[in-house]
Amino acid sequence: MKILTFGEIMLRLKTPEHLRIVQADGFEASYGGAESNVAVSLATLGDDAAFLTKLPKNPVGDAAFNELRRYGVDTSRILRGGARLGIYFFEKGSDIRPTSVLYDRAGSALAEADADEFNWEALLSGIDIFFFSGVTPAISPSVEQAVFGALKYCHSHGITVICDLNYRTKMWSQEKAQSVMKELMQYVDLCIANDEDFEATLGIHAFDGDMAHGIDQIETYRQGILKIQELYPNCKAVASVLRNLKTAEDGEWMGIYLKDGHFYESPIHTVHSLEAVGAGDAFAGALIHGLVHGFSPQKLIDFSITASVMKLMIQHDFNLVSEEEILRIMKTGETNVIR
Amino acid sequence: MKILTFGEIMLRLKTPEHLRIVQADGFEASYGGAESNVAVSLATLGDDAAFLTKLPKNPVGDAAFNELRRYGVDTSRILRGGARLGIYFFEKGSDIRPTSVLYDRAGSALAEADADEFNWEALLSGIDIFFFSGVTPAISPSVEQAVFGALKYCHSHGITVICDLNYRTKMWSQEKAQSVMKELMQYVDLCIANDEDFEATLGIHAFDGDMAHGIDQIETYRQGILKIQELYPNCKAVASVLRNLKTAEDGEWMGIYLKDGHFYESPIHTVHSLEAVGAGDAFAGALIHGLVHGFSPQKLIDFSITASVMKLMIQHDFNLVSEEEILRIMKTGETNVIR
Amino acid sequence: MKILTFGEIMLRLKTPEHLRIVQADGFEASYGGAESNVAVSLATLGDDAAFLTKLPKNPVGDAAFNELRRYGVDTSRILRGGARLGIYFFEKGSDIRPTSVLYDRAGSALAEADADEFNWEALLSGIDIFFFSGVTPAISPSVEQAVFGALKYCHSHGITVICDLNYRTKMWSQEKAQSVMKELMQYVDLCIANDEDFEATLGIHAFDGDMAHGIDQIETYRQGILKIQELYPNCKAVASVLRNLKTAEDGEWMGIYLKDGHFYESPIHTVHSLEAVGAGDAFAGALIHGLVHGFSPQKLIDFSITASVMKLMIQHDFNLVSEEEILRIMKTGETNVIR
Amino acid sequence: MKILTFGEIMLRLKTPEHLRIVQADGFEASYGGAESNVAVSLATLGDDAAFLTKLPKNPVGDAAFNELRRYGVDTSRILRGGARLGIYFFEKGSDIRPTSVLYDRAGSALAEADADEFNWEALLSGIDIFFFSGVTPAISPSVEQAVFGALKYCHSHGITVICDLNYRTKMWSQEKAQSVMKELMQYVDLCIANDEDFEATLGIHAFDGDMAHGIDQIETYRQGILKIQELYPNCKAVASVLRNLKTAEDGEWMGIYLKDGHFYESPIHTVHSLEAVGAGDAFAGALIHGLVHGFSPQKLIDFSITASVMKLMIQHDFNLVSEEEILRIMKTGETNVIR
Amino acid sequence: MKILTFGEIMLRLKTPEHLRIVQADGFEASYGGAESNVAVSLATLGDDAAFLTKLPKNPVGDAAFNELRRYGVDTSRILRGGARLGIYFFEKGSDIRPTSVLYDRAGSALAEADADEFNWEALLSGIDIFFFSGVTPAISPSVEQAVFGALKYCHSHGITVICDLNYRTKMWSQEKAQSVMKELMQYVDLCIANDEDFEATLGIHAFDGDMAHGIDQIETYRQGILKIQELYPNCKAVASVLRNLKTAEDGEWMGIYLKDGHFYESPIHTVHSLEAVGAGDAFAGALIHGLVHGFSPQKLIDFSITASVMKLMIQHDFNLVSEEEILRIMKTGETNVIR
Amino acid sequence: MKILTFGEIMLRLKTPEHLRIVQADGFEASYGGAESNVAVSLATLGDDAAFLTKLPKNPVGDAAFNELRRYGVDTSRILRGGARLGIYFFEKGSDIRPTSVLYDRAGSALAEADADEFNWEALLSGIDIFFFSGVTPAISPSVEQAVFGALKYCHSHGITVICDLNYRTKMWSQEKAQSVMKELMQYVDLCIANDEDFEATLGIHAFDGDMAHGIDQIETYRQGILKIQELYPNCKAVASVLRNLKTAEDGEWMGIYLKDGHFYESPIHTVHSLEAVGAGDAFAGALIHGLVHGFSPQKLIDFSITASVMKLMIQHDFNLVSEEEILRIMKTGETNVIR
Repeated sequence: MKILTFGEIMLRLKTPEHLRIVQADGFEASYGGAESNVAVSLATLGDDAAFLTKLPKNPVGDAAFNELRRYGVDTSRILRGGARLGIYFFEKGSDIRPTSVLYDRAGSALAEADADEFNWEALLSGIDIFFFSGVTPAISPSVEQAVFGALKYCHSHGITVICDLNYRTKMWSQEKAQSVMKELMQYVDLCIANDEDFEATLGIHAFDGDMAHGIDQIETYRQGILKIQELYPNCKAVASVLRNLKTAEDGEWMGIYLKDGHFYESPIHTVHSLEAVGAGDAFAGALIHGLVHGFSPQKLIDFSITASVMKLMIQHDFNLVSEEEILRIMKTGETNVIR
Repeated sequence: MKILTFGEIMLRLKTPEHLRIVQADGFEASYGGAESNVAVSLATLGDDAAFLTKLPKNPVGDAAFNELRRYGVDTSRILRGGARLGIYFFEKGSDIRPTSVLYDRAGSALAEADADEFNWEALLSGIDIFFFSGVTPAISPSVEQAVFGALKYCHSHGITVICDLNYRTKMWSQEKAQSVMKELMQYVDLCIANDEDFEATLGIHAFDGDMAHGIDQIETYRQGILKIQELYPNCKAVASVLRNLKTAEDGEWMGIYLKDGHFYESPIHTVHSLEAVGAGDAFAGALIHGLVHGFSPQKLIDFSITASVMKLMIQHDFNLVSEEEILRIMKTGETNVIR
Repeated sequence: MKILTFGEIMLRLKTPEHLRIVQADGFEASYGGAESNVAVSLATLGDDAAFLTKLPKNPVGDAAFNELRRYGVDTSRILRGGARLGIYFFEKGSDIRPTSVLYDRAGSALAEADADEFNWEALLSGIDIFFFSGVTPAISPSVEQAVFGALKYCHSHGITVICDLNYRTKMWSQEKAQSVMKELMQYVDLCIANDEDFEATLGIHAFDGDMAHGIDQIETYRQGILKIQELYPNCKAVASVLRNLKTAEDGEWMGIYLKDGHFYESPIHTVHSLEAVGAGDAFAGALIHGLVHGFSPQKLIDFSITASVMKLMIQHDFNLVSEEEILRIMKTGETNVIR
Repeated sequence: MKILTFGEIMLRLKTPEHLRIVQADGFEASYGGAESNVAVSLATLGDDAAFLTKLPKNPVGDAAFNELRRYGVDTSRILRGGARLGIYFFEKGSDIRPTSVLYDRAGSALAEADADEFNWEALLSGIDIFFFSGVTPAISPSVEQAVFGALKYCHSHGITVICDLNYRTKMWSQEKAQSVMKELMQYVDLCIANDEDFEATLGIHAFDGDMAHGIDQIETYRQGILKIQELYPNCKAVASVLRNLKTAEDGEWMGIYLKDGHFYESPIHTVHSLEAVGAGDAFAGALIHGLVHGFSPQKLIDFSITASVMKLMIQHDFNLVSEEEILRIMKTGETNVIR
Repeated sequence: MKILTFGEIMLRLKTPEHLRIVQADGFEASYGGAESNVAVSLATLGDDAAFLTKLPKNPVGDAAFNELRRYGVDTSRILRGGARLGIYFFEKGSDIRPTSVLYDRAGSALAEADADEFNWEALLSGIDIFFFSGVTPAISPSVEQAVFGALKYCHSHGITVICDLNYRTKMWSQEKAQSVMKELMQYVDLCIANDEDFEATLGIHAFDGDMAHGIDQIETYRQGILKIQELYPNCKAVASVLRNLKTAEDGEWMGIYLKDGHFYESPIHTVHSLEAVGAGDAFAGALIHGLVHGFSPQKLIDFSITASVMKLMIQHDFNLVSEEEILRIMKTGETNVIR
Repeated sequence: MKILTFGEIMLRLKTPEHLRIVQADGFEASYGGAESNVAVSLATLGDDAAFLTKLPKNPVGDAAFNELRRYGVDTSRILRGGARLGIYFFEKGSDIRPTSVLYDRAGSALAEADADEFNWEALLSGIDIFFFSGVTPAISPSVEQAVFGALKYCHSHGITVICDLNYRTKMWSQEKAQSVMKELMQYVDLCIANDEDFEATLGIHAFDGDMAHGIDQIETYRQGILKIQELYPNCKAVASVLRNLKTAEDGEWMGIYLKDGHFYESPIHTVHSLEAVGAGDAFAGALIHGLVHGFSPQKLIDFSITASVMKLMIQHDFNLVSEEEILRIMKTGETNVIR
């Protein structure tokens, strides 16, 4: 089974430690973005994953390309050209101080790419699963159009489509997001919806917006999940991460998965995170891994949420954790020094 | 409204991470000191703040000067000359290991300055509020004398005097502190007293000295605060930060403010701090900001304590947090990633 | 005498040491750009210098703003707003490996600013000297238009205009540059032309393009300089830096200055540079400083070229060298440890 | 009283922060190993401690040698020669992610040393206490033989032998460990046994292996400790650290000490550790210090466990904490900034 | 054309800047080794290059594997297993202080691999060129045997064999080297011999051992090169780098290439190197690239030596320089800032 | 033979790379000072060297103490107590930019020590050679007095006194220096005089002050050296380093040694230094080493100057170079990679 994920990878510039941008005289550089993170998760878990984007032919584009290759992602379908790589600045919060992300992604090679640069027949050749998140169509109208092209091709060629709704308030309005995502959902076979995604991208009320009480609202979430399946019958399964968040680091996390009319729910993990980004992508990557390897629904959701919270303990965007490590945490919760 | 703060800024040499000084082969360099921190808080909050000190005419003095200028403090009244910039070494603790400060400030340009180098008529021209903390008169007899000069000028020219009692056990004895501070308090319009300050600088018993139970002793604090007003009728308001401290990072913080015979008390913030210095200065800075902008007493104390605990999440001495950020934390307690 | 410089300041992201971008997992961050560098030179030399640009209202824009303030530049005329701060990536070469600059400046706040956002009457109030380089009109058509607005205002209000022709091949073609710069030169009172600037911006042949033999072609340069004055009678003086460059670090540098029909030429400095950027801006800054302080033409050119080669020994974009230090190098060439 | 500890010191290569080895492009280098850590603890506490090992005559061996000397350990008995210094790679965990140690110690100078290179008569001359841990005999058969040589010499010359059983699953099997350690225990005067050491090295069941509930099983531990004394009558005292571990950082720690048929138990310390290695060695070092200085059994165990948890707040392997600091923590639990 | 290189990649631990190992408290970590460096050169130049070695299945082995993949090397033939990755410590010299390399490679996964783990039929399937250096057979007897296996298979299946004689005095004696390399040379189609390689590995006197005068002895070198062809008629071409070295950084470099009885010689490059390792491997990589792309003999040697001296300006082991960059240096020697 | 050196060790705070102090947000921390550097040189060369100073009992004093111990210096005679450790800030120059040292040493523990804290009978017990430099008596009147005490004791007890005149213009005037040093010279057995030392400390004209032409004035130097012996008959030998300095890094160095009426002169070393401090101390250390080991006068001066220029290639203050390494450089000048 070969998976293709489609989206944007950016240069991530993080200040050292918890410095504010106005204090920093250097940035840690890494590369990440929702769909590339999913591809790296899959490659790290041992799957055959390719990533599709467009990268500028300059050293910054090369560095992003190499970083994907370094972690075993198939980069052979990536388009090269265009002006620049998108950037995001990252200030890591602490306790009551929220982590802050500043996008500088306008005018990126992918955003400026024409929809017809994507020859889906070639790009999807040999692909079994196609993944994208709601970030991708939000990038630009032409990328939105490209996503439609991909989904239609998948739909007519039996390629499974998995979508993480992944709403980004800094990228588009709820109105705009809904007008696009509702349409795209017609082609989606499995959908991941977290937190505000229900409302923002599909207009379904599942969550009152208070991140401190996501898990406490599990019943509303269940209703929201059922509503998705009701509205989008092509969508055969829905997964979701629920959270109670207390500080920038402390929270409770659980996964819920609706399949064949049954809800499978993971235990609640109480964690203090090291760097709270990429957990949703890690969840998606683990979920696809489990689907590819035929995990039972209960194992699937347990594995996915464990992978997701393990990501909270890994720096940068990629969830560089092996299947063996995830399974060990699931089993023992062992945290003593391994020596 | 223009504010002048008067005191010493030092070179702060912090070991990387939590290294002991004997382990470190480098120091992070920044600049700070109570009154300069207050000035930077004010400038960051958008106020017109000047800082007064004496800095050596050498590159280390220039660097301190530039750092103030960088964050928008008016440096035009700073005296230049003298031998050296005071230094403090900083070892960041962890849990049961206390954070440790080693002063190397003897012989600094300010400590060696003559009282008559300070031409208060010129230095206080255009100033509406004058701020100093108990650290300033503790620096040297000549600086103590200078403070008296300033306060007398303020008193006779209608400039509001705000003082953070700020006792430092490594700088002077309680006996010496009381002999000076009791005198200075005659000229103070608003006073900030925390923890041991009551006893050490004014001989008022408000706290048993156990940092683990400051908030638990709120009633004694209230009595201490009332006692201040009783003894120093010129002092029209008193503010205080109360804390229960559990470890080097974990604690509960609240603010209390006496004005016109009424106590205004903030909610209790339970926090895990990133770097527990400068919170008192952040409190003072926010308090002055609120006074300048006519905040209601309740908003004033809520805003000040929120600013203070936000500082616990910022590295180095300066509280580089905007008014908008403080208000957002006050309102929502929102800690999810902002993106 | 107050100087205003107008142009773009960018975030500069340099790889550590000599790493290639594809090797680096971090960047040193500083801020610079031709005209901001000139303003910092002037402030460091003790002059009253303001910088004009447009900066985004976000932490990256704030950091650029603060960095200027830190070094004493008057930032009160800077416009705030727009989308992003321009960036340039910097890879430091070595010997036969050239230093490489990768611009990522499209869509910057300044580039997108409308010409009529610049109210020249207000912005030039109290200004005696206006400086810009050829980079500024190359940024965008609206900035080009703004430059015309400024020059016309200066011309009619007796403000001296100084221009460093400063051709950037990655920003515009020679054809486009000439069509603009020839027009702007009508208003220029003093012009700095280096290397390829003669040909690229004014169509005057002074240099065969071989950086290894600039000084060797001094006679052609002299002709080129005379030609400038012939073509642009408003331009009362011309200065130029001539170089023989052997490697990325090694070269010979000299200055030449035409004033009142006489050529003043500095000695040749043979240097091994630490970081070969910003030397032209340091030359311009020192030249303006000398003009403001009435240096004799010979001292002016000697001082300017010494400041310029001193910049080669300073990291980042700004020439943080005092007048005293430059004069000491001019006099003694003393390089022993100062202790 | 002079103490000699015998074992291996290694180069420790830790990734920065919490990076995975596959992410890191650098390592923090320090030096450590159980018995060297004990020697440094003793020297830091003011005792006369020597360390015995074999180090290669190359710069890496020199660096380990110097690091011991730096912290006051007597290095005059160390053998020089052999091929390489053992290495261990260290990845610091976080919350549910365990800290991970990767040994690269095969073929080290000590492992390859012949037993007869150790002239115990000379090496133990002037020594009052000999300390080793279970790691030492696990290094290689020849080192195991050397340990036997040392213990026999000590036994017949009245030198006290102290052993921390210290089982390492990556170094030898329980079967092999028991066959050696049971024999060595005949010569041991005081024994430290923690967690799985009872079972793994002596075949005594004291702990079900679940690190989350060590303290909860205190009664079984007490039985295990009594069993040690029953089986090894030469062993006049037994000390043990009991722990409930919740995450990679959070846990409860207590000490227990059996002497003259009486159990002395410390309070339970609830801590969030900074770097959870070397705490057992810190415990052993403090215990020996207390024995040397005639602490009462209750003070001994309280001091030792406090030293041990203080180590959790210190980076690298060595417990660089003075007796005064330990006593202050024991007394007050004071964690406010010391200034 | 597909190239396979065979040898060992090691973890390289370099002290920061020029620190001595005894001063350093950290190491920069990268990965390199002669044959892996050649593979990366080829991949960077756009060729299809695979690397063969054996890597341990642990995070350090993974990191080496990933680093190769990052730069585009085909890692699909690499064996996994064994105990450890070889290490080399690196201290960068300066002027009269030589750069120093300390090997810690004994017991590596490759050294311990059995010769029959290498199934040459599978490993060489689809390969056109096989490259190894004299380092590979020096690793261990079993690796030596594996090399013989590979060469015999190549010889009988028309795969071109290229060998860089690459003598390492710390790995084997001249006597041992000659006994092996003379035998292996029977199968070599193109040979690279530098400096002492002639004497040490083939017993041919071409150089008096004085690195300060290699180029000065060009005539002896020419005789040595002819002698190689005379003794090993299978060897159809010989290439060599000649050097005059003045300091750890300063030297003159030239290439010489014997093909069809004619000597092709490059210009002499006078360079000041940044980090003088890997230049020989860069030469070999460029040479193979030129052969694959049918460069004329003169262009071949000019290109190879230029690539080699460019490597002197790149940090770490890999020559991350594109064909375009090498050609630009060959043509212009241009070293001005590219912007 | 046991050597005692007496003087001050300071905390050295160097900006990273070549940053100006006003640019740096961190300092590299190391420890050094003329006489401590000599002690470390001797210990590194294998000699029995002790260092005498007074260090504060705080972590910064401990770190200096440990650093000496780390490199094998006998620290048992060091006094502890006093207020602070002296500091010096260090900005590394480049080419025409001089390296700059900013002292912050006033009020140090040593400077404030009373002369009678030094019990010379105990401190000099077992000592064969006593070394100090002209920096020591310049520290304070009480230290000057202590030096007199030491020299008188040495003189009457047959302990050899070696003095490096070592004039520091920032510490005392030539007038003051001469009044002290001329007196002290009565007791000196071997004297080292460099550059301006002749004039500044002894009033002997040997050098015109132009560092670019020291070697060129060798004849005047020879006269100066002879003059020393003439004026101070107790001084049986004089050594001197002569230099032609071209830039902050480039220079020519040679040694000259007068013994028994004969001048021994080393070859001239042309070097490009990495960090030009401590070379004089390295010279003194090597000279004492050679005297202790009975080197012939010619070998002595050759060895000493080679050690001195090797120091130019080592970072920080200490010359961490072995006798073997110095001898290898003396013999071969070999600078190729050692592997």
